[in-house]
Amino acid sequence: MHYEKITTEILEKLKAIVGPKNVVTDADAMQPYSHDEVTDPAYHHMPEAVVFAETAQQVSAIIKLANACHFPVVPRGAGTGLACGAVPEYGGLVLSLEKMNKILEINENGLYAVVEPGVRTSDLQEAAEKKGLFYAGDPCSGDSCFIGGNIATNAGGNRAVKYGTTRHQVYSVEVVNPTGRIVNLGARLQKQSTGYSLDQLVIGSEGTLGIITKATLKLLPKPKYALDLLAIFDDRRQAMGVVTKIIKAGITPTCVEFMDNITIKSVEKYLNENLQGSDNGNYVIVEVEGTSEDDLDDKAVVLDEVCTENGASSVLVADHNKIWQARKAFAEAVRAESLIVCKEDVVVPVDQEAALLDEILRLAQKYNLVTRIASHAGDGNIHLNILKNEDATYEDWDQRVKANQQELYKFIYAHGGRLSGEHGIGYKRKHLMEEFTDPGELEMMKAIKKALDPNDILNPGKIFDVE
Amino acid sequence: MHYEKITTEILEKLKAIVGPKNVVTDADAMQPYSHDEVTDPAYHHMPEAVVFAETAQQVSAIIKLANACHFPVVPRGAGTGLACGAVPEYGGLVLSLEKMNKILEINENGLYAVVEPGVRTSDLQEAAEKKGLFYAGDPCSGDSCFIGGNIATNAGGNRAVKYGTTRHQVYSVEVVNPTGRIVNLGARLQKQSTGYSLDQLVIGSEGTLGIITKATLKLLPKPKYALDLLAIFDDRRQAMGVVTKIIKAGITPTCVEFMDNITIKSVEKYLNENLQGSDNGNYVIVEVEGTSEDDLDDKAVVLDEVCTENGASSVLVADHNKIWQARKAFAEAVRAESLIVCKEDVVVPVDQEAALLDEILRLAQKYNLVTRIASHAGDGNIHLNILKNEDATYEDWDQRVKANQQELYKFIYAHGGRLSGEHGIGYKRKHLMEEFTDPGELEMMKAIKKALDPNDILNPGKIFDVE
Repeated sequence: MHYEKITTEILEKLKAIVGPKNVVTDADAMQPYSHDEVTDPAYHHMPEAVVFAETAQQVSAIIKLANACHFPVVPRGAGTGLACGAVPEYGGLVLSLEKMNKILEINENGLYAVVEPGVRTSDLQEAAEKKGLFYAGDPCSGDSCFIGGNIATNAGGNRAVKYGTTRHQVYSVEVVNPTGRIVNLGARLQKQSTGYSLDQLVIGSEGTLGIITKATLKLLPKPKYALDLLAIFDDRRQAMGVVTKIIKAGITPTCVEFMDNITIKSVEKYLNENLQGSDNGNYVIVEVEGTSEDDLDDKAVVLDEVCTENGASSVLVADHNKIWQARKAFAEAVRAESLIVCKEDVVVPVDQEAALLDEILRLAQKYNLVTRIASHAGDGNIHLNILKNEDATYEDWDQRVKANQQELYKFIYAHGGRLSGEHGIGYKRKHLMEEFTDPGELEMMKAIKKALDPNDILNPGKIFDVE
Repeated sequence: MHYEKITTEILEKLKAIVGPKNVVTDADAMQPYSHDEVTDPAYHHMPEAVVFAETAQQVSAIIKLANACHFPVVPRGAGTGLACGAVPEYGGLVLSLEKMNKILEINENGLYAVVEPGVRTSDLQEAAEKKGLFYAGDPCSGDSCFIGGNIATNAGGNRAVKYGTTRHQVYSVEVVNPTGRIVNLGARLQKQSTGYSLDQLVIGSEGTLGIITKATLKLLPKPKYALDLLAIFDDRRQAMGVVTKIIKAGITPTCVEFMDNITIKSVEKYLNENLQGSDNGNYVIVEVEGTSEDDLDDKAVVLDEVCTENGASSVLVADHNKIWQARKAFAEAVRAESLIVCKEDVVVPVDQEAALLDEILRLAQKYNLVTRIASHAGDGNIHLNILKNEDATYEDWDQRVKANQQELYKFIYAHGGRLSGEHGIGYKRKHLMEEFTDPGELEMMKAIKKALDPNDILNPGKIFDVE
């Protein structure tokens, strides 16, 4: 992969496009743009320049310049990624969308919002709520991550069981495509069969096929009634197995979350609070919505029965804020334990999840790995955090992590799973992507990338290298 | 567009692939494969040969042969399309999937089905029901159309308000891609962020990017309680306006259907039955599901209130079979009136639907058009059928239909709508596709088609010409 350097001449052109204040080349100022939430410095890369765009027209002009002068452009939202999708592996420009942060419209009658990519997820959630509406997207990092990044990675989160992932919240996106053209993909429609679904193609493409400059998102009437249940299981297999049973009982939960015992203890320590069942229990948190209090009561009874029949030692109505504080503290609690962590984001069919958990724990023992596990169990998506053993060298630990990955992903692909449930591939997992993806599928992805981005300008080296 | 003819030598090779009985060149036998449900003979084209495939490997061998010898291949399901998507505009081969008609698996624990493309939709619905499960896809032509065709056109139907269109029922597809490679796209997962969403790209691509040879589809537990309400409105604007009000009242109906008065009278005549409110009413049919009888009762009360407040002259609990017989008789009733019909399948945002209906009727008056209108009102998708005036020549009528289209689609695109809600573009609407689609978006679609199908073998001339 050969690119031209960003010269003084190019910098002047960039300043002419976005204004001098929006072009940064100072090393200290650029440092935060050399990484995302992956703390391991092995994955950090300095950009040659950071540019802040304020309009789609500016983004378009930058991409046209990049094509003309052949330097790479790496779009960046809040930098909360976990796969190095916004890290400039091949240098070039980091294009930050953080100044495009306006909620342009909340339409109560049409039930939609129009936002710029730099809008914080929680800001949109709150703005919708103020009008009695509801934005269903809810990644765990909602307090910091941006809508643009959510769309680029097809972020999942806590309500995907009922509402789907970010791709299901999007009516349409305005993107600057890899040749610098501003295009609108998708439409504010319940359905259509009018040509290729380019919106769905661009969503989740991690900034390799287009830079999102605006999005029209679905809003819903705010659910009237909701309830969180905490079921505590001694046996983790039984805990995992409850998901299918709940769905087969005719209940569509908003979410079903799982935390294993050692992770609960880690969170307990981090929050400095006693958590129920932390002696030897595994958590299953079930959130369910209802159309009335009676409806909710009926569902709670069914959930209690299903969980108890499946071996829960207790099923409690949980305090919403408290239980979610514990669940959302997972990432921070892990970080407090170690800055060197390998975060696997594996996903399998829900009915294969208990088997996957067994395999994860078998491999952890085999390779002497320190694990912390939380999962969006309702989606078959397990967050396996592997902490560096305190007494191990980086090289030794890294070798064991890699050996574990080989066995783990063989198991996962044999069971119909995939590399990433919601974090994306970025450049951190692209070697695994090349290794485990069906060659025919990968060939089609690369053909599309080459066709739409002939100069390989837009976020090159992410997901895969086009060669 | 220049292709080679299918020679005797090629026919021999085809016979070697699928067996002699599966290669048809007799004109009479090929005639049914020269058209879909578009009755106007101006849109019929004879293939040079019809081939029946029985395995994905056969399909793959045929596509490789087509690339080597440069003849076009037009995949075909049940032929129930309404946009000439399966009609061999440029001659060549019609590849029928009708013999690949097996339901390979209904998995009760994993809640999914694996089917071949030639499975009739209603057969899958029934097979699921026998196991207490539910396949949510439900096009009006469910008794005849195939799953493969549903996927290729992203068929909508009667339950899309709650369950989405066909693309939302699909976990994964096995396709033979345009170069003849068998690839699996998507996975049986609730979510993933592992590269481009090629499954979503191929779904709805009308056989231009891949031939579906197998699909893994979502099943759900069978809804326990359901209810159909018929609301009769004197005012069609008020009838249409009720959709948003229902959703804002917090109810997600399974469907909301609309039929205007003149269409009700047409169906009444066709069925030779008296239909309620046919004197001067417009129908809104609302189906809603509930978790219990009480839940259903609560929803019925809210729906009654919302409809009455919005001007319904009566709201009745409808007999499910009877009301759906009337709704589904729409297409047949129109056909009984005239074989020469222009079927528009327009879609706009739900909150723009009443305005669109006004515009449709204004234009009908302006161009002296005979209209029959039913709509998936809950999706903003209006089926406007324009019958040839009995006293007009074809040319005169056709001219007025075309003039109407120009004005109608300008209005629709200005209001955020699209050409087709669920029928697709085929070759019947491709001139409108070229005219009304954003040039940047169209350029991207063509670039993808060229990249994946460099010889333009797979269903050429559908949706657009690549030039």
